[in-house]
Amino acid sequence: MSTSREIHLASRPQGWPTADNFRLVETEVPTPGPGQIVVRNQFMSVDPYMRGRMNDVKSYVPPFQLDAPLDGGAVGEVVASEAEGIKPGDTVLHGLGWREYALLDAKAARKVDPTLAPVSAYLSVLGMTGLTAYAGLLDVAAMKADESVFVSAAAGSVGSLVGQIAKLKGASRVVGSAGSPAKVERLKALGFDAAFDYHDGLVRDSLKAAAPDGIDVYFDNVGGDHLEAAISSMNLHGRAAICGMIAQYNATEPPAAPRNLALLIGKRLTLRGFLVGDHGHLRDQFVQDMSGWLRDGKISYDETVVDGIENAPEAFLGLLRGENLGKMLVRV
Amino acid sequence: MSTSREIHLASRPQGWPTADNFRLVETEVPTPGPGQIVVRNQFMSVDPYMRGRMNDVKSYVPPFQLDAPLDGGAVGEVVASEAEGIKPGDTVLHGLGWREYALLDAKAARKVDPTLAPVSAYLSVLGMTGLTAYAGLLDVAAMKADESVFVSAAAGSVGSLVGQIAKLKGASRVVGSAGSPAKVERLKALGFDAAFDYHDGLVRDSLKAAAPDGIDVYFDNVGGDHLEAAISSMNLHGRAAICGMIAQYNATEPPAAPRNLALLIGKRLTLRGFLVGDHGHLRDQFVQDMSGWLRDGKISYDETVVDGIENAPEAFLGLLRGENLGKMLVRV
Repeated sequence: MSTSREIHLASRPQGWPTADNFRLVETEVPTPGPGQIVVRNQFMSVDPYMRGRMNDVKSYVPPFQLDAPLDGGAVGEVVASEAEGIKPGDTVLHGLGWREYALLDAKAARKVDPTLAPVSAYLSVLGMTGLTAYAGLLDVAAMKADESVFVSAAAGSVGSLVGQIAKLKGASRVVGSAGSPAKVERLKALGFDAAFDYHDGLVRDSLKAAAPDGIDVYFDNVGGDHLEAAISSMNLHGRAAICGMIAQYNATEPPAAPRNLALLIGKRLTLRGFLVGDHGHLRDQFVQDMSGWLRDGKISYDETVVDGIENAPEAFLGLLRGENLGKMLVRV
Repeated sequence: MSTSREIHLASRPQGWPTADNFRLVETEVPTPGPGQIVVRNQFMSVDPYMRGRMNDVKSYVPPFQLDAPLDGGAVGEVVASEAEGIKPGDTVLHGLGWREYALLDAKAARKVDPTLAPVSAYLSVLGMTGLTAYAGLLDVAAMKADESVFVSAAAGSVGSLVGQIAKLKGASRVVGSAGSPAKVERLKALGFDAAFDYHDGLVRDSLKAAAPDGIDVYFDNVGGDHLEAAISSMNLHGRAAICGMIAQYNATEPPAAPRNLALLIGKRLTLRGFLVGDHGHLRDQFVQDMSGWLRDGKISYDETVVDGIENAPEAFLGLLRGENLGKMLVRV
């Protein structure tokens, strides 16, 4: 097989993206130069942050280019190598998803062991997703035992791990919000002490009912009314780790903003944005903790898998609409 | 003289307070019981945070009571004492302002030395005001040398010290905003590298012009559009110490809120509210630094003094309207 397919950005979305913003393109399977490898991708990740990269604005990662392949986390099998230390058959994690075959410098790939865990886990619970949950909760928000934790988008890949890690680390109460009754049920099955559907009334009221004694830590994946509600419910010296604000990624108007920031003063609250890339120093500790929890059956993780590179745009759109339970992946 | 006058809260303000919310009341000069002292107040402080205490809401300090004297920082001379270690003639700092004579437990007063500095300084540069600036800038926002600093309400008592301390601690650039051309001139005289009148166009534009390379630290006394502008101008890993939000203390509508909090994520920003009361451990270091700077003529401080307890409400209203330069005090 000498043909590879990949997804290009055909146009920049205004507001919610549609299938028309993407294009499936056929290309040749590349040949590696010195120091390079070719990987046949098995799974690729779609993530909310990719929506921001579809805008032509300066940010912490450069915007996607028009008429060029998108990129993002992927895992696959090496099929050709001109690099020392990596051979065909190895499984590697790398950053060139959205395509069937990836050509990259071997230095940009990390070998993973497919016998320790399903390879998809390196994109979710054992990968960036897991480390995001772990670092945001324990490092950025500095959760301590006996504290009360709230996480939004809690049935998503990061949120569901945040809640479970919080319980494992001794949180007194863990509350999650999600977007459907089925997700709320799933959160309860995962061990959340309380969960609510954010469509059922004001988030502020739902949170106060779910955490009557207030919260000490908020892990924010949503922004807007969720952040406002969290600030309202925070106890003295509360901390919010700001991981994402999916509520506003597709907004064409200025987004809703918390009106109660003055509470930061009297309650001495801290809001802190973070990117997982700044917390690589926690990786070893994370892998050790998470591997142990997985081995002992203490952590569950959900994956929603869509088949075929041609369906990657639809998987991404479904993610933005909240159709995933846990990690949204494309089996390439 | 056996009569003392004090200011009572006659009614709770809705929106901007007026003179009608206050009442001047004559009472007897009290007599101290065991362990108590009576202080003839010389100066009392009016502060923005007092506006919040006029509302009947739970907060970090209890609300003022109707038909009872207001309170707040004051300094005066002991005229009667039934407490060990404090004698008539001593000068003390305490929390019962808004009255000519104060009766209090000696434990609630702190002796100060009137020969080291004018007694009013213990309410401003050497007191809570100075410590607020010092702790917020150096501890909460953790300003380091060669960083760029923005402070709002910069001609106020706290703001003018923030800017000067930042320069003394090696800030690469210090920018202040204020509410009149005269205040802007004063900031330049105090050594600010740039200053602007927030009435002149959008704060966001003025700040970008004044700090074209961005800011690392924001000391917030205002909230709203100032905070939004600061977030916009912040460099990676920027920090905001949230000290006050005077822009919204009198608001009857939900206040303007920063619409750009999603920038916290990519820029890894931190917003942290604080109260000076949590930073008492810095007092010794603060007094040592500040006394040295004052002795060496490296810090200037402004006071706006209103005479007469009967004019204390007007002093407070003037403070909210921004009529003060530096610390607003009432000479009792």
